[in-house]
Amino acid sequence: MEVSPVAQQGPAGLPWYVAGSQALGLACVVITGVWMGHYRGGYAWDGSSHEFNVHPLCMVLGLVFLYGDAILVYRVFRNESKRSTKILHATLHLFALIVSIVGFVAVFDFHASSKIPNMYSLHSWCGMVTLVLFCVQWLMGLGFFLFPGASPWLRSWYLSLHVFFGLALFVLAVGTSLLGITEKLLFSIKSTYSTFAPEGVLANTLGLLLVGFGVLVGYIVTREDFRRPPHPEEEALSMHFKTLTEGESPISP
Amino acid sequence: MEVSPVAQQGPAGLPWYVAGSQALGLACVVITGVWMGHYRGGYAWDGSSHEFNVHPLCMVLGLVFLYGDAILVYRVFRNESKRSTKILHATLHLFALIVSIVGFVAVFDFHASSKIPNMYSLHSWCGMVTLVLFCVQWLMGLGFFLFPGASPWLRSWYLSLHVFFGLALFVLAVGTSLLGITEKLLFSIKSTYSTFAPEGVLANTLGLLLVGFGVLVGYIVTREDFRRPPHPEEEALSMHFKTLTEGESPISP
Repeated sequence: MEVSPVAQQGPAGLPWYVAGSQALGLACVVITGVWMGHYRGGYAWDGSSHEFNVHPLCMVLGLVFLYGDAILVYRVFRNESKRSTKILHATLHLFALIVSIVGFVAVFDFHASSKIPNMYSLHSWCGMVTLVLFCVQWLMGLGFFLFPGASPWLRSWYLSLHVFFGLALFVLAVGTSLLGITEKLLFSIKSTYSTFAPEGVLANTLGLLLVGFGVLVGYIVTREDFRRPPHPEEEALSMHFKTLTEGESPISP
Repeated sequence: MEVSPVAQQGPAGLPWYVAGSQALGLACVVITGVWMGHYRGGYAWDGSSHEFNVHPLCMVLGLVFLYGDAILVYRVFRNESKRSTKILHATLHLFALIVSIVGFVAVFDFHASSKIPNMYSLHSWCGMVTLVLFCVQWLMGLGFFLFPGASPWLRSWYLSLHVFFGLALFVLAVGTSLLGITEKLLFSIKSTYSTFAPEGVLANTLGLLLVGFGVLVGYIVTREDFRRPPHPEEEALSMHFKTLTEGESPISP
């Protein structure tokens, strides 16, 4: 089976959409960094509010930007082997997980130092659900797709669930970030927020950019003609990698 | 072309998923009603905070529950004609739009009476973006799919965008509702929220149920084997309805 030149180059427009997503994603990380660094006094690891500031930066970097990019690798690396792409997908998600856990530790540590109760807000409930399910999703992906053992039928069955819940958790991470922005603004600048204080406008803009990043990543991974084409060399791969491209489920995640 | 008995009955499991979505969706509407009715003093249309209480109820009923159900009609009414299903889809969305506009008027009217500034919060920005784009989406759907005029190619091209942005706006509506819950709790019970006051726990639970409704609707409409099968009688329909089932785009929205 030959891969056509169009499949080799990728569909028209894909590089622009990917570039747009990276611009939006990086803008989100930078704006979060500026918000916490400039308006909220910078970063530290001493139990003060400066330690709290590590939390939003880690969550936007880990659970939004790196998570989104881990999803995109199947569209960006269309001509690399499935095995390499899969390992890159799992590695980026692992980085996302580590950065997110640092972000979680930062906020719990700050709460402990400042005697602030944990886990009472909707933001914290959604965040905990997202992180726990992300861990489960990562471990199940590892077990089903990177280690031998699961039958071809089981892999094919789980693939569509992995794809759906992967995207759903990404969207939940973006939504939880918006809740965090609202909470932080109402705790910090409640009296000036309604006067369109620059910090509030910056944080609201960050919220819209996060939504834009989420929508763009969702569009790229669900658009039919952006799917990864079948590759001839995958025919020769060992059984437990090859089976992912078979069955009635979508041929590419 | 014959429709198989399986296609007539629908795929196994679909009724249970739909029933689950309706249970979650109705629970969201009821809990919002109880929250505003019991904890926030009930409803009125007099510019007071009781008028504000109309806002969350209308938004959850219109932009979440009715909007979600309008999306689901293509999966629920699998054996009705495409034309009837399409008209039901547009009608439910129209109800959703009307109820949402009442909800918007309620909050702007309350702000005007109480001299509270408008449109400064992330919740308001996301809500306005959602409602404006929902209007645009509804009008474009009407123009492309229910009135003659658009070419088959143009309809086929727009269908995939209509489906993607329809679902994206629904998710944004759910996310905006969560922002509204957080805002309302921090304005109303900031001092007791961290002590797990019943009102806070109820509203947080509402947030998780809204997420559950969003995830379930998203799962039902994106699952491959839940798609609407092609129907023989649609072959005989007039050109501008028939073309929707043709082309390279998904055969059913």
